[in-house]
Amino acid sequence: MARLPKSELCVVLVSGGMDSATVLGIAAFLGYSIAAIHFNYNQRSKDKELQAFDALCDFYGVKRKIAVDMNFLSVIGGSALTDDSIAVPDSLPETSEIPLTYVPFRNGIMISMAAAWAEVIGAKKIFVGVVEEDSSGYPDCRESFIKAMEEAVNLGRKPESELRIVAPLIHLRKAQIVKIGVTLGVPYELTWSCYHGRERHCGKCPACRLRRKAFSEAGIPDPTVYEQ
Amino acid sequence: MARLPKSELCVVLVSGGMDSATVLGIAAFLGYSIAAIHFNYNQRSKDKELQAFDALCDFYGVKRKIAVDMNFLSVIGGSALTDDSIAVPDSLPETSEIPLTYVPFRNGIMISMAAAWAEVIGAKKIFVGVVEEDSSGYPDCRESFIKAMEEAVNLGRKPESELRIVAPLIHLRKAQIVKIGVTLGVPYELTWSCYHGRERHCGKCPACRLRRKAFSEAGIPDPTVYEQ
Repeated sequence: MARLPKSELCVVLVSGGMDSATVLGIAAFLGYSIAAIHFNYNQRSKDKELQAFDALCDFYGVKRKIAVDMNFLSVIGGSALTDDSIAVPDSLPETSEIPLTYVPFRNGIMISMAAAWAEVIGAKKIFVGVVEEDSSGYPDCRESFIKAMEEAVNLGRKPESELRIVAPLIHLRKAQIVKIGVTLGVPYELTWSCYHGRERHCGKCPACRLRRKAFSEAGIPDPTVYEQ
Repeated sequence: MARLPKSELCVVLVSGGMDSATVLGIAAFLGYSIAAIHFNYNQRSKDKELQAFDALCDFYGVKRKIAVDMNFLSVIGGSALTDDSIAVPDSLPETSEIPLTYVPFRNGIMISMAAAWAEVIGAKKIFVGVVEEDSSGYPDCRESFIKAMEEAVNLGRKPESELRIVAPLIHLRKAQIVKIGVTLGVPYELTWSCYHGRERHCGKCPACRLRRKAFSEAGIPDPTVYEQ
C-alpha cells in the first residue's frame, strides 16, 4: 500500500470496536490526515464505546474528531441494543437471519452524516469498517448497499468532487482482520466489542463471541479480559 | 387520485413549510394513515417551524409524530441557515448556483432517519416535499438523488418489503403547488417559510421571496403577514 501526502483528508467512522480500529490503523498506515467521527445512539455500551473512541484517537494522534448523538435511534426503538424491552441474545444468530441487535438503517444514517461532515471539511473519502460476511447478517453491511449509498451521496452533494466510500474490510473474515490489524500495530486492547456496557467484556453476547473467535482463529493471543 | 384503506401507513416529512404542508394534504386526501416526522437542526427559524409542524399535525389529526433533534448539522456548520458567521442572503441566488443556505446532504440524512422509523413502525412509503425546479438549486432535491436514495434504503433494510420514496411535487413549480394545495384545503396560514425566526415572515429572504411569488403567480391571495 502506497503512502499518500499527509495533506489528503479522510473521514473515518470509529465505533470503538475491532473493525473500525483496524480501519483507523489502515488509514493511518496509508498516511491520510484523519478526521474521526463516532456515533452514540444510547446503546447499552455507549460509555465504553466512547472511551474506546477517545483512546484510539489519542493513540493515532487524531485531533479532528466529533462524537454525534443519535438518540433518535433509541427513541424509535426496534433493536435489542437500544430497546430495554428486547433482551440482548446470548448466542450467535443463524446465518441469513437478521439479528435482534440490528438497528434499522444505522449505517445509512451514519454514512449520511459522515458525508455531510466530509463536505464541510473537504474530505474526499469516508472509511468505514463494515464487514459483509462472517460478522453480521445486517443488510446495511452489504457491498451492494455501500455502493448504492455512495451513488446517492454523490448525487446529493455539491458536484465539485466525488466522495468515495472505502470499506477495506468488507470481504474479509474476522480472523483476517485481526491478522492485518496486528501487523499494522492496531491496539486492540483499547477497543470495545461487548453489547453490554459493564466494566469488562461479558464474553457471552454475540459481539464477544465473535471477538473471541477472531483471535482464536487468527492464532493470536486475545488481550481482552472477559467476565467469563 | 384513488383513496386507500385507512390502514395503509406512511411517513411524511413535515418541515412546516408550504411544500411539506401540501404533501401532508396530499397524503391525507389519499386516505393514508399518517406518521409525521420533523427535523430541527438548530436553524434560525427552528421554533417557528416546530410550531408550524405541530399546528399542521393538529389540523390533519396526526397523532403519531416525532420531532428529531439534528444539532449535529449546526455543529459541523457550513450553511447560512445554521452558522451565525454566514449571513442569510437577501436575494434569490442565480440559477445553477448552489445557495449559501444549502445544508450539506440534509435530505439524505432526513430520508435515512425517516427510513429507519418507517421500518420500525411498518410504513411502506415515505412522502417528501422536495421540489427539483424553481425553488432550490440544492443537489439533494433532484429526482436522480431521490431515486438513488430509495435504492440505497432498500438495499440497507430488512428485505421483507420495499420502501417507496414518494415525492409528488418534484417536477412542479411553486405556483402549481399552491394551486393544488388550495384545492385540497391545505391551511397555508399555519405554515412557516422565512429563514429568520422572528415573529412575522421577513418578506425579503430567499424563502419569503419564493413564498410571495408562489401566491402571486398562482393568482391566490397570500394569507401571510410580512414585516415588509
